[in-house]
Amino acid sequence: MRTLKLTLAYDGSNYVGWQRQVNGLSIQQVIEEAFAPLDGGQVRTIAGAGRTDAGVHALGQVASVHVDFDHAPSAVQRALNVRLPLDIRVLGVVDATPGFHAQFHATGKAYRYRIATTAVLSPFERWYVWHAPGPRNVAAMQRAATHFVGEHDFASFQPADSPISDTVRTIERLDVRDAGGEIVIDVEGNGFLRHMVRTIAGTLAEVGGGARDPDSIHDIMAARDRRAAGQTLPAAGLTLVSVKY
Amino acid sequence: MRTLKLTLAYDGSNYVGWQRQVNGLSIQQVIEEAFAPLDGGQVRTIAGAGRTDAGVHALGQVASVHVDFDHAPSAVQRALNVRLPLDIRVLGVVDATPGFHAQFHATGKAYRYRIATTAVLSPFERWYVWHAPGPRNVAAMQRAATHFVGEHDFASFQPADSPISDTVRTIERLDVRDAGGEIVIDVEGNGFLRHMVRTIAGTLAEVGGGARDPDSIHDIMAARDRRAAGQTLPAAGLTLVSVKY
Repeated sequence: MRTLKLTLAYDGSNYVGWQRQVNGLSIQQVIEEAFAPLDGGQVRTIAGAGRTDAGVHALGQVASVHVDFDHAPSAVQRALNVRLPLDIRVLGVVDATPGFHAQFHATGKAYRYRIATTAVLSPFERWYVWHAPGPRNVAAMQRAATHFVGEHDFASFQPADSPISDTVRTIERLDVRDAGGEIVIDVEGNGFLRHMVRTIAGTLAEVGGGARDPDSIHDIMAARDRRAAGQTLPAAGLTLVSVKY
Repeated sequence: MRTLKLTLAYDGSNYVGWQRQVNGLSIQQVIEEAFAPLDGGQVRTIAGAGRTDAGVHALGQVASVHVDFDHAPSAVQRALNVRLPLDIRVLGVVDATPGFHAQFHATGKAYRYRIATTAVLSPFERWYVWHAPGPRNVAAMQRAATHFVGEHDFASFQPADSPISDTVRTIERLDVRDAGGEIVIDVEGNGFLRHMVRTIAGTLAEVGGGARDPDSIHDIMAARDRRAAGQTLPAAGLTLVSVKY
């Protein structure tokens, strides 16, 4: 049995998210169905490193799949890109160590959250940012960001009804920068809870708007209560940038 | 009678073009219908500076409209942006000299044509570029571009069946640059024939691919024959950047 590692980019606007669902079209389903004809029609599970939510985008999602065929990786890439819609692209295919699993073997992920601050939202950015017009105190957001870096309990940053109890994660980097009409939040860590990036971004946005103290982050973490943190920002602003192994 | 000048940005992907048509939704129609409630329900003609084709985008289209009401320009902008879909945005509204006409009084326009040269097209650029993978000789394109600058007869660069006989136009600037995975063509002139920018871009692309001599441009112009020039590139790669008065 051979294992392939796929690197993928997608515009998540038209999908219910990465993961297969009964109530709509997922990116996983579209890729699995594009893949099947290469493998004698057999639909294989394609495991994604991160289960991006509906509307979340990817510049460098990684997926793994076990296959029986002998096609060269470059031929697999070409065949998939011919079959896939233009909002999902295969950036690369390589042979991985047999048994490689994109989700379980990932050691880190990088996400980006974009906040457009211009009075009028560019029509070209409407699916890719959260539009929150008006100035924000980026220096305060940067100060708050420093408190997230390191190993912390992120229970306050996942949905209140989450069954996940192991909520300690390590954030290696959390950068906030003013990109002119847009605030860009880049975060890297060893793993992320559901909604964690969007809730960190929402908490930072509230710091930037003056509604929260930049030094309140440790209190929010200590509360281990979803109500202590800021709002979960909309999915459209979020992009999975890359996955580390 | 008062005349307003509107500056507009739009993603043209979902429209039949700027101009009202019976066979589909135009940007002009959407704006005129969003405008009517501000003016007692009366549908006024909103004149655009450039009649962008289906799929062509705008960063700075200009339009003019005669109105009877007293609303402040900023209130008009806000009301329109509330009513308009997110792929059409009003960037600004100002009072113009009464009688100002966005098309007839324009003295120049700037367009951009984008060619993506990467092997795989980014899903985020799929509506905004022409995808033509592989290297092109940008220096040859730049040399060819110099021959377009100045006053010339562009009869070879409009559709063969065009009724327009006054085909002399002046190009003030034609820049070609390699933007890394993308070739960007910026052109400014006093006026453009239908398909002229897309056919100039197609001719430059053929120069870049080695199919045409960079010094053949004057022969193409002298032919005054559509068959002498290169292909008309797809609408999606074209953006109306700004209009001068």
